[in-house]
Amino acid sequence: MKSPILAFLQDLHARYAPLTEGKVADYIPELSKANPNWFGICIATRDGQLYEVGDTRQRFTIQSISKALSYGLALEDRGEDHVLSRIGVEPSGEAFNAISLKPGSGMPFNPMINAGAIATCGQVLPKDGETRIQRFAAYLSRCAGETLDVDEEVYRSESETGHRNRAIGWMLRNFGIVDEDPHDILETYFQQCSLKVTCADLAVMAATLANQGVNPTTGERAIAQEYVDNVLGVMATCGMYDWSGEWIYRVGLPAKSGVGGGIMAVLPGQLGIGVFSPPLDAQGNSVRGIKVCMDLARDLALHLFNPSAAPQPALRLGYNASQVVSRRRLPPVASQAVRRYGERIRVLELQGPLVFSTFEPVVRTLVRQAAYCQQVVLNFKHVVSADPVSLRLLSQIRAQLATNGVTLFCC
Amino acid sequence: MKSPILAFLQDLHARYAPLTEGKVADYIPELSKANPNWFGICIATRDGQLYEVGDTRQRFTIQSISKALSYGLALEDRGEDHVLSRIGVEPSGEAFNAISLKPGSGMPFNPMINAGAIATCGQVLPKDGETRIQRFAAYLSRCAGETLDVDEEVYRSESETGHRNRAIGWMLRNFGIVDEDPHDILETYFQQCSLKVTCADLAVMAATLANQGVNPTTGERAIAQEYVDNVLGVMATCGMYDWSGEWIYRVGLPAKSGVGGGIMAVLPGQLGIGVFSPPLDAQGNSVRGIKVCMDLARDLALHLFNPSAAPQPALRLGYNASQVVSRRRLPPVASQAVRRYGERIRVLELQGPLVFSTFEPVVRTLVRQAAYCQQVVLNFKHVVSADPVSLRLLSQIRAQLATNGVTLFCC
Amino acid sequence: MKSPILAFLQDLHARYAPLTEGKVADYIPELSKANPNWFGICIATRDGQLYEVGDTRQRFTIQSISKALSYGLALEDRGEDHVLSRIGVEPSGEAFNAISLKPGSGMPFNPMINAGAIATCGQVLPKDGETRIQRFAAYLSRCAGETLDVDEEVYRSESETGHRNRAIGWMLRNFGIVDEDPHDILETYFQQCSLKVTCADLAVMAATLANQGVNPTTGERAIAQEYVDNVLGVMATCGMYDWSGEWIYRVGLPAKSGVGGGIMAVLPGQLGIGVFSPPLDAQGNSVRGIKVCMDLARDLALHLFNPSAAPQPALRLGYNASQVVSRRRLPPVASQAVRRYGERIRVLELQGPLVFSTFEPVVRTLVRQAAYCQQVVLNFKHVVSADPVSLRLLSQIRAQLATNGVTLFCC
Amino acid sequence: MKSPILAFLQDLHARYAPLTEGKVADYIPELSKANPNWFGICIATRDGQLYEVGDTRQRFTIQSISKALSYGLALEDRGEDHVLSRIGVEPSGEAFNAISLKPGSGMPFNPMINAGAIATCGQVLPKDGETRIQRFAAYLSRCAGETLDVDEEVYRSESETGHRNRAIGWMLRNFGIVDEDPHDILETYFQQCSLKVTCADLAVMAATLANQGVNPTTGERAIAQEYVDNVLGVMATCGMYDWSGEWIYRVGLPAKSGVGGGIMAVLPGQLGIGVFSPPLDAQGNSVRGIKVCMDLARDLALHLFNPSAAPQPALRLGYNASQVVSRRRLPPVASQAVRRYGERIRVLELQGPLVFSTFEPVVRTLVRQAAYCQQVVLNFKHVVSADPVSLRLLSQIRAQLATNGVTLFCC
Repeated sequence: MKSPILAFLQDLHARYAPLTEGKVADYIPELSKANPNWFGICIATRDGQLYEVGDTRQRFTIQSISKALSYGLALEDRGEDHVLSRIGVEPSGEAFNAISLKPGSGMPFNPMINAGAIATCGQVLPKDGETRIQRFAAYLSRCAGETLDVDEEVYRSESETGHRNRAIGWMLRNFGIVDEDPHDILETYFQQCSLKVTCADLAVMAATLANQGVNPTTGERAIAQEYVDNVLGVMATCGMYDWSGEWIYRVGLPAKSGVGGGIMAVLPGQLGIGVFSPPLDAQGNSVRGIKVCMDLARDLALHLFNPSAAPQPALRLGYNASQVVSRRRLPPVASQAVRRYGERIRVLELQGPLVFSTFEPVVRTLVRQAAYCQQVVLNFKHVVSADPVSLRLLSQIRAQLATNGVTLFCC
Repeated sequence: MKSPILAFLQDLHARYAPLTEGKVADYIPELSKANPNWFGICIATRDGQLYEVGDTRQRFTIQSISKALSYGLALEDRGEDHVLSRIGVEPSGEAFNAISLKPGSGMPFNPMINAGAIATCGQVLPKDGETRIQRFAAYLSRCAGETLDVDEEVYRSESETGHRNRAIGWMLRNFGIVDEDPHDILETYFQQCSLKVTCADLAVMAATLANQGVNPTTGERAIAQEYVDNVLGVMATCGMYDWSGEWIYRVGLPAKSGVGGGIMAVLPGQLGIGVFSPPLDAQGNSVRGIKVCMDLARDLALHLFNPSAAPQPALRLGYNASQVVSRRRLPPVASQAVRRYGERIRVLELQGPLVFSTFEPVVRTLVRQAAYCQQVVLNFKHVVSADPVSLRLLSQIRAQLATNGVTLFCC
Repeated sequence: MKSPILAFLQDLHARYAPLTEGKVADYIPELSKANPNWFGICIATRDGQLYEVGDTRQRFTIQSISKALSYGLALEDRGEDHVLSRIGVEPSGEAFNAISLKPGSGMPFNPMINAGAIATCGQVLPKDGETRIQRFAAYLSRCAGETLDVDEEVYRSESETGHRNRAIGWMLRNFGIVDEDPHDILETYFQQCSLKVTCADLAVMAATLANQGVNPTTGERAIAQEYVDNVLGVMATCGMYDWSGEWIYRVGLPAKSGVGGGIMAVLPGQLGIGVFSPPLDAQGNSVRGIKVCMDLARDLALHLFNPSAAPQPALRLGYNASQVVSRRRLPPVASQAVRRYGERIRVLELQGPLVFSTFEPVVRTLVRQAAYCQQVVLNFKHVVSADPVSLRLLSQIRAQLATNGVTLFCC
Repeated sequence: MKSPILAFLQDLHARYAPLTEGKVADYIPELSKANPNWFGICIATRDGQLYEVGDTRQRFTIQSISKALSYGLALEDRGEDHVLSRIGVEPSGEAFNAISLKPGSGMPFNPMINAGAIATCGQVLPKDGETRIQRFAAYLSRCAGETLDVDEEVYRSESETGHRNRAIGWMLRNFGIVDEDPHDILETYFQQCSLKVTCADLAVMAATLANQGVNPTTGERAIAQEYVDNVLGVMATCGMYDWSGEWIYRVGLPAKSGVGGGIMAVLPGQLGIGVFSPPLDAQGNSVRGIKVCMDLARDLALHLFNPSAAPQPALRLGYNASQVVSRRRLPPVASQAVRRYGERIRVLELQGPLVFSTFEPVVRTLVRQAAYCQQVVLNFKHVVSADPVSLRLLSQIRAQLATNGVTLFCC
């Protein structure tokens, strides 16, 4: 039996496959050899499931998509303070290859423009006997769950024609953003951009970001957890060059595109998307890629602000399926969420993920009930997770209840 | 008994009350009369609970915070296409009072800079016998759940000294972004900025945005649901001027600040925050406001990308409280989520909110089980909500199962 | 008998009359009514002679050419220090209608861009019962030797569509470059630009500037002598907008053009040129006007740096016509320039204009001869003028010779 | 006996020697070793006379002053069209080290900013077995009349720290402004800037430019005559960076400064000035140098537009010394300039340099007299030079007179 999800993706693919808009990147001869008909769509879930339609195993060079992940590695190597002292996180309002250095400091506006990406590359450290590019390739391979190699032809082409990037490199050197002759950094940067990936790889990398840095297909940690939000943050505001604001407005997913035709988009905590189609629009984004992402976001309600995906209050009321189907909104937190057993015992049934906003009504209810009871039972059976904040609040309220002569039980 | 949440906010207030950094806005005499010690913090929940500490009922002028809500009203009046044809949604990388019009079209970069806000103001229609400012005041009052008035002194001051804004108005007129003599638009704009609010009002307005446009204290719809994400989108990328990227990176909440000292921040689907303290930093953001929001985001894990707040897979496994407390991550979707009753009956217990990413494993499981059973029961008892996408998938899979001779029951 | 100069100008006119390039200004309807075939060329000499070819008596609006002269009047009214504190004299490298205010101070880069011209207009004082525009019209009329009136149709058109200029006006108000509501200044500015002139008027105005501010046809002083060089200075570096550098490089004459199709060019100390032809190039300069000026400069050697026009050493040697014709360079200053009469008497025959560089060899010779003579006679018969510097040097050297026992006679 | 000119320069030196403003350039260690008290002033006349006061024989590096002369050499090597297709001649309104490339073409705005100077350096050809730097050093040596060498310490320093210039070099390579790897061009550029000169050398180079490219001390042609005006043109509009407009306005001399503390200024056709004093102002111009040039221009009336230096009408009237002294302005061209000998013979006595504006009254008079005479005699005895334009007019009028039966004699 065919999954309706796969069917949806096949429809989507069929919808845009006939498109003839856009132009394959041709600033280097190697890129212009791409077939304009190549077109793949992938969704990777947080538990490692991969939906694939079209040319999802065709290799192409990752190009600027590498910038997002390289930023994560630089953060791991140097720490946030160091990296933020060299590279900003502000959208620049300018094209990707604009020099865009802040007046005075010479700091690149953000790591997603070339200047920022070259500076980022210069923060990555060679380590454990590996060169920078070996380390980065291994890191990216962990994100993709595949061994990724440099396309030597593309790399050579990039290096031979990368005059503007060399200019940027020297400008960074001038402002002390990089500490060494930029030559080696640039070669690493050209290699980094020339790593070959597939559309499926992009989706898995995106899912790795969605999954707090753990690759969901291999189960291996690829990105240090503490820097995942940083990477998503710059993707959210700067990932699509001077179309980033429009992208968040219309699509609502942190994303990064590359002139090879790839787009990687992340719905944090939920899933990853990869799209591949070489013809580009004027901003250098894949024409089909943009359309596919806009349709996915709209038709599957994958927007960052989707209210239905917001965590619901943890104080559980009775439901049945027909209610859910007929009225889709959450119910008010009502007193019937508290069951009484005799005069002095209260039972609260909790559910869903516990975070500040879901646990706050529990705290509030406990504060209110404190005067009227001796024992409170919190039933965690339907709780799926609890973050440190909710656990801290739990421990605080338990202590306070104790001072007020009320015992709190969790079960 | 005192809520540990209130205690936390009181600590936070005490932490930053002694600060002496920053400077009260003085570009108009009226603003400079603000007391630099005024300091209030509010959190408003989606069910109408309000936590307040400090000067939360002190009135001050809303200033630029009005820009975010005015944008919502303009969208309601003119529709997205019209508004997007006049005002962009790209961060400009420039200061708030930069003229920042796109070369050629003269479109303001976004509605959060003065040029964009004046243009937005010009899109709002006088209607039902109300002037523009009356309509906007009524709209904003619905968002706050309070009747808001113009501070006439501040308005007069703004109007007398608003030379730069008049220049912007004429430039917009020049490019046909506004269609009329800008004089009246500017007067409305000066009045709009001079509306008096309290810190509590800001929190409720933020909660209204968090609650899909319905004011959680009054239960009244204040903002058309379809435009809430648009407002949040521009707040996310452009709300804090040329510090917007940094803000998303560090705080991670769509927000808007004003030179009156207010900041309004939204955790979509969850809660709203209001902070008020007049001394400003160099970017024109409230010094204490920024620090409070950074601490709130960190200490209460209120970041947009907080993985714990992400919806969990809907296929339920057994839990107990100790598990939750000791390991905070969600478990893999395992086959034991499907219970068998005899050879041909399967029961799947669902939970949490149903959206694409949580319902996809259910679909997948159903597709796999189709060949091995005759009846499937989906237990919705612990489901808290279902979005249209999940319901569409449910109906598709039910139809497909039927063609394969499998009956799907929901209970 | 026809003058070969007139014949040259007729040839020049015939050369470019067939041109069809360029586009009549149409940003206001009135301007677009101009006949694209109108074409006039005038040269006005320092002694009031006027060479005219073509449509030299057709009236058109002066437009931006007024900026150069308005600057002169502002200098007279407020003095150089005041005016320089409000309006810069640096080329901006930007188009004429760019806002181009210096960051920080808000000073317009120069008086030749719109912002600078509006600011300049705001410095002109109403005086003697005249409004600003009456004063300026009278001033300009003195420069042209004709009574100039406002074209009311064009003025109305300018005023109705001058949104960008109003924006500029408010920006200037914002920075305190003008001290009043810009409305009246702008109306004056629109009137100033709408004054009607002819090609002949432009040539006479240019000749007035060439003639140190005295109108050569009327003999009346039109521009205070001390500010003529200031006007010429800004025309030299900023007169042709973002083509000013190219203009000085290729044409080498301080000049100013207007969108009405006029160009006024000055060869300081020598003559004035007026050209009129409505079709404009992309920079807003008259297409035929540019070509005519380039040919005039080349074919008549009218470049500012023309070495043949440089003053020759004042110490005269013997010449004859054939020498002049065969070798066109000046001879070295030779000792035979000093004639001896007996042992102790020296006679130096002087010639040409006396300025520092021409008189310096005389001083040098006198210093050298001092030890060898008792009397020196300077023969001024062939001297045509002497500037204050040469007269000061003369008096100094006379005094010094006296202390050394040498008497200096002038005859 | 001491020359009053030398006395004037000594006073000027004494006036500014005590100044303590400004800061010696320290961006490379070698430059910071300069003695802030070094101070020299030189004037070189067109006939090779050199006035010197102070440290006029102290060597220092030429730095940016080389840009003006390098531009002349590039023009000789490649022709005007080629050079103008690579490097503009527009002031940029920006600082010297701004990248300032025109959008689209990537052309540097002008040859006086670093980008333009590096591009210019790349147009100079190695020739006759010499490297670029050898050719340029020889060229510059001809301009100075001295053998100039590279300061190897400064060169090494420049090369080691010239990161920004390398960035500019690669940007020029990117836009095809230079055709080769910029490395060699930059080394030549660093050497060019490190050539050692004296204040006296600067004055002689300036006099060489004033003297149409012939070094007045050696009599050798140093700069091709046809390009001298091009060099002076860019010096006039772009020579003093973003102070160029102010400079022309206040000083009125084409000039070029360098961070070594030198300024070279030219009064075309008349003389050259060199000033040297290491402490610089914020724009990178020598503090004392600016003041000295302003005083020289004012006190010696050396402004480009000085009306007294303008050529006087060639039709001579009778004068005597007292007239000259009392009324300094030229007389009107009067009919008494034509002497009659009998009915049919006219004698016109000519004087001064013959250029268009001085010869035009002669032409006009001849045209008027044609009907009334049979023979005209032009007496050239007091003519000092005649440019090709006046000779062409002479030949035309002679031919026309002949057709009208009038014979023209020159004597």
